[in-house]
This record gives sequence, C-alpha cells and structure tokens, in this order.
Amino acid sequence: MTTSFDRARAYAAGTAPLPFPIPEQVTIQEVGPRDGFQLEPGVISTPDKIAIIDALSATGVPRVQVTSFVRPDAVPQLSDAAEVMAGYTPASGVEYSVLVPNLKGAERALETSADCWELMLSSTDAHSIANANRPTAEAFERLRPVIELGLAQGKHLVGGMATSLGCPFEGRTPFERVAWVVGLYAEAGVSHVTVADTAGLADPAHVYEISAKLRQEYPDLRFTLHLHNTRGLGIANALAGMAAGITDFDTSVGGLGGCPYAPGATGNIATEELVHLLDLLGVHTGVDLDALTTIARGPVATAVRHKLESSFEKADPSWVLHTPPQRQELAGA
Amino acid sequence: MTTSFDRARAYAAGTAPLPFPIPEQVTIQEVGPRDGFQLEPGVISTPDKIAIIDALSATGVPRVQVTSFVRPDAVPQLSDAAEVMAGYTPASGVEYSVLVPNLKGAERALETSADCWELMLSSTDAHSIANANRPTAEAFERLRPVIELGLAQGKHLVGGMATSLGCPFEGRTPFERVAWVVGLYAEAGVSHVTVADTAGLADPAHVYEISAKLRQEYPDLRFTLHLHNTRGLGIANALAGMAAGITDFDTSVGGLGGCPYAPGATGNIATEELVHLLDLLGVHTGVDLDALTTIARGPVATAVRHKLESSFEKADPSWVLHTPPQRQELAGA
Repeated sequence: MTTSFDRARAYAAGTAPLPFPIPEQVTIQEVGPRDGFQLEPGVISTPDKIAIIDALSATGVPRVQVTSFVRPDAVPQLSDAAEVMAGYTPASGVEYSVLVPNLKGAERALETSADCWELMLSSTDAHSIANANRPTAEAFERLRPVIELGLAQGKHLVGGMATSLGCPFEGRTPFERVAWVVGLYAEAGVSHVTVADTAGLADPAHVYEISAKLRQEYPDLRFTLHLHNTRGLGIANALAGMAAGITDFDTSVGGLGGCPYAPGATGNIATEELVHLLDLLGVHTGVDLDALTTIARGPVATAVRHKLESSFEKADPSWVLHTPPQRQELAGA
Repeated sequence: MTTSFDRARAYAAGTAPLPFPIPEQVTIQEVGPRDGFQLEPGVISTPDKIAIIDALSATGVPRVQVTSFVRPDAVPQLSDAAEVMAGYTPASGVEYSVLVPNLKGAERALETSADCWELMLSSTDAHSIANANRPTAEAFERLRPVIELGLAQGKHLVGGMATSLGCPFEGRTPFERVAWVVGLYAEAGVSHVTVADTAGLADPAHVYEISAKLRQEYPDLRFTLHLHNTRGLGIANALAGMAAGITDFDTSVGGLGGCPYAPGATGNIATEELVHLLDLLGVHTGVDLDALTTIARGPVATAVRHKLESSFEKADPSWVLHTPPQRQELAGA
C-alpha cells in the first residue's frame, strides 16, 4: 500500500534540506480525545469517543491520550473516563495514556489498563494557583504520592509542565524556572516531561531556546512539546522544537482543543497539519494522513458538530494533483 | 507612544536567537484590499474599501496593494478600481500598488496615481493555460508591451510569478523553471519579482531552497514571497524565506483571500500573525499590531460579514498579561 509518506516523498523528491538539522523520526501523541474533547461544549457520547479512539489507533499513530481522571464535576465532558477506558480495543504498538491529576485520579486510573500516566503541574506560580489553588512547589508535593504509586506499578510517567513557554499571568517563563520544575520531576524519578505552551504564547526563538537548553541540561530525559496554535505559530514552533532535537509532540486531530484564556481561540496544533509537514520534509511519523483526514472530516466533525480548525477540512495534501484545463480555441484568436 | 514592537521586545527580552540568521527588517505589502476582496462573495461598497485602505495605510505598513485593473466582468468585486484609486488619501511613506494584468489594464492604471504595477504570470504552463489560456512563454509576450509602457512611465514594476512554489496541476515547480521565468522578467527590465505560492502547496524546505537559489542566481533582484496558509504552513514558510534572506512579504489583513482550487480554504497569511511573530523575534516591520488588529476586528470584519481566518480575531498578543486569580482560603484546608 502506498502511504501518504511515500506520495509526499515522490512529490518533494530532490528538494534540498532545511538550513538546520531536524530529526529523521518524530513520535506523535494524539491528544484529541482528552485535550480536545474536554473543551467541547456539546456532549459527545461514550460510544462515539470509543469509535474515534479506535479509528485513531488504526492510523499508525504510536501514542493516544484517551481521557482524564479529573473530578467529574470539574470536567463533566470526561466523566465517562472509566467507560471509555473499558471500551476501546487496544491496538498493537500503540501506547495509551490518561491524565492523572491527583491521588484519587491515580486510584481510578489503576483500575484501567492505561500504560502511561500524564501528570499535571504548572511551571508558574500564578497559573498553578489559578489551576490548583497552590503554587508550583506545593502542587508538586501533592503529586509525589501519585508518582510513587505510578513508579511502583511500572507505569510510564510523563510529567506535564503547563505554562512552560509563557504564562498569561506572569509573561515569558524564565528557563531557570522551567529547568527547576524539570528537576523536581527528575529527582522524583520521572524521566519524560512535557513542555506545554498552554496559552499559545511561544514563538520559534523561545521554543528553540528552551528546548535546546533543556536537552543540554537533562540529556537523559525525554521531552515532549505540547503546542497550541492560539496565535498561528504552532507549526512554526514545532519546527523550531525539531531544530533543537525534540522528537515527541502532542497534537490533536482536527486541531481540537482551545485556550482557557481566549474563549473560542484556536487549539492544539492539528495532527493532520503536522503529519502533512513531516511527510513533505521526509520525517517519519508512521501516521497515514489520508486515514487521519478521513476520521477528522467524518466521525470527529460529526461528534463535535462544529467546523474544525485544521486546514485539511478544506484542502487536500500538497501532492494531490488536479486535472489541468485544456487550452480553449477562441473564435477569431 | 509605545508600539507593539516595544512591548514585544520587553516581553521577549533576553531570548536567544534562532539557530539561523533572519533579517533585521522586513517590508510587508498589505494585499487584503486586492487579493482578499477579489474573492469575497458579498459586495463591499467602494466607500468601505476606501476607508479600509486609508486605515491600513495609517498602521505603518509601507506598501498597500489597492486594487486590480482586471476585466470588470471577470472580477466584478474589483470593478470599482478607478473609483477606489481616486478615493483613498495617499499617506506619506506608503507605496500603493495595483495589479495590471494586460495592456488594457495598464491604460486604466495610467489614469491613476499608482506608483507600482504588479504583473501576473504563471510559472507553470498548465496554470498559465488555466488562467490566461496560453502557456507561460506566450503569456509573457503579452506582458512585454505592459512592461515597456510601465518602464517608460517610471513605474515600479513587480513581476508576479504564480505557482512558483507548486502547481495544483503539475506538482512541485522545478527551480530551473522558476529561474527561467525570473530571467524573462529580468531581461525585460523588471528587477522586482514576486514568488507566489498560489495554491498554498509549499513547505519550509522548498521555500528555503527556491528563495536561497534565486537570491544567489539573481543577487541584484528584489524578491517578494507571497504565501498562502492553505495547509497551515504559511507562517513556517515565511520564516524559512527569512532564513534565506527574503525581506519582502505579501500578507493580508485578517488572513483574507483564499485558494481558487480549494473553495473556502484558508487564504493569504494574515498580516497580524506575521507582524506578531516579527515583533516577538525583534524584526522591524513598522506596522503597529494594535492598530492593525483594530481594523481587522472592526471595519474589515464588518465589510466581509464573515469570520476572519486570523487567530487574532480571538487572541491578544503574547505580551498582553491577564490579572492572576488569588489563592482561595478553603474551609478546612
């Protein structure tokens, strides 16, 4: 079977490389079912969620964030977390993650087959107070028993760091602050950390700087970039992260998701847009763009009942050729 | 007065540079009144157009593409070209351009005060046949008398090259082909050429390659990049062009415009998004983002009567800080 990667390579054959190195392979985590669905105003049925998760798992994406064990009264959109976890069919080679905000969530997650727990922490005190009613250091102490439980259970732990690339209350987050949060996770035994641009405030220079310095300071850790397209810079920021050697990215089918500080604003970078770019650049993701676009335009669009942000709702991949019109023989010409 | 550039510099102070050089200054041409308005399904009144052109001229943007002297029956949206040209108030330091597709258009343009004529040519034969019913070389011969007239009248001529970064019928446009079209213009005395990604097919590696090679092969020419965001890559492509030393960009207020091969698809890169990025990167444009956003959200949105593509419809610049919530004293906590 010819994949979108093959077709893109044929289309872009012979193009010179970028003026900076980028990875040969990128690992995408599809976060639409969690980060996207949690902000949807309409109700998405549990069977619809399960069908979408199963369909996404079949696109070749290696990681899927399924749901979140937050308080059901806080995020009613994900109150069916246990049912969703029990309902999907695990695909071979796909890692399924869940968001685990606290010990109670961890206990619920333990009753499911989730391989990977994603933890939540804000890099800035003001955002941590807004989200968790306590500054970062205190919020981290609350995470310690979750980390200990997860490590004891052999879970793949991913330490989330909201507002690492800018805070709507504090402004640009200093590298030293981000590195300090990474250090908290690392000392507690968490070796995979997500650098999140929660409010979509970053620019490519900032992403490059933070990514490169973190990789230099913590060469043994794995870093995921979680980028939002709130100000149209998501894809450019992803490219800057790759220039700094980052190979893990969170993206959302259809560009689902949003920004809690800008209602209605553009959300996560769309998985289709990143896969399309990487296909053109010859970076392997394993994701089939056609399968993904079919899911976005079909079941996802139907489930959320609104226009999706991804430009692939209206456009075909660059390598799809149209039939040219023929020259007209004009009378008297 | 504090400009958006000043505020962005304060916000991003101390950030390390990108891993590739970019220009210190970029010249933006605002093309919304032409490239945007020509695709709008609704009628925009002549006074509304004139008010928007005057408002855009006051943002500090150095170039504005006002209208097009195409056949009124072909593009009825711009059939008021002469009235618009007679109606706006030229601002000091702003260059106003018009699109001149043929000798008849040139004669109409001559009756106006337009300083700059933009010519149209497709880099690929299939697109040239689709647009002008003749292959590129024949279409260029039709442009020769326009070029001669423009040069004799002392006009600033800009040679447009549609489909230079990909053709919906032929695929990726080879560099040799693009260079040949540039050579046609250069030999005829046109020293400023626009490399257009008409259908939004380019990726950053492709933009970098074509831009760098053209600058190397034609060091005395001025090149503008005209990019579309059809597949979400517009801003990343602009950054790649800057990495290749390009300092001229066409952009459209609110992201107006579209793709003739993908109805409803995302249009030109939004002026607000490029200015915001360049403010953050410390690249001077002279454009005040706040003034521009006010025009986009106000008179432009009112005139076109639909949601704009620019993410600044719903988001503030990165450097705008929100008031942080205070920690709550919880009973029993």
